[in-house]
Amino acid sequence: MTNACFYHAGCPVCVSAEQTLLNLLAPHVKVEVVHLGDQKQRVVEAEQAGVKSVPALVVDGQVLHLNFGASIDDLK
Amino acid sequence: MTNACFYHAGCPVCVSAEQTLLNLLAPHVKVEVVHLGDQKQRVVEAEQAGVKSVPALVVDGQVLHLNFGASIDDLK
Repeated sequence: MTNACFYHAGCPVCVSAEQTLLNLLAPHVKVEVVHLGDQKQRVVEAEQAGVKSVPALVVDGQVLHLNFGASIDDLK
Repeated sequence: MTNACFYHAGCPVCVSAEQTLLNLLAPHVKVEVVHLGDQKQRVVEAEQAGVKSVPALVVDGQVLHLNFGASIDDLK
């Protein structure tokens, strides 16, 4: 079982894109989703894991920073 | 079967991180990996798909831009 942690901050566009990614992940990957806006006490943990921006996926100590390039149109 | 396309430009750090992500993807996802440095004729295709930067994963018309935040240490 691979454990992963998905940090985000609640942006609707990002949540939608994250869902796409989470749906793609293999069944053997257990992903914990952490909303840092709601769980500010976990920001330090994210920083210590190497998270520089959100959304980010941390897997086996490796940080994958995700930037979905949301356009203005997506936000309308 | 979900089809996805991973565009990158050959950075060793990114290739390593991509491999981590590709290993996580579910078996029902078929990922084509395109090195845009080697296959410049596919840059237009990537642009038309909405790719603004690499590495990026395009899935079902949705572009996930990835930015691994490689540190200088990773590049040593």
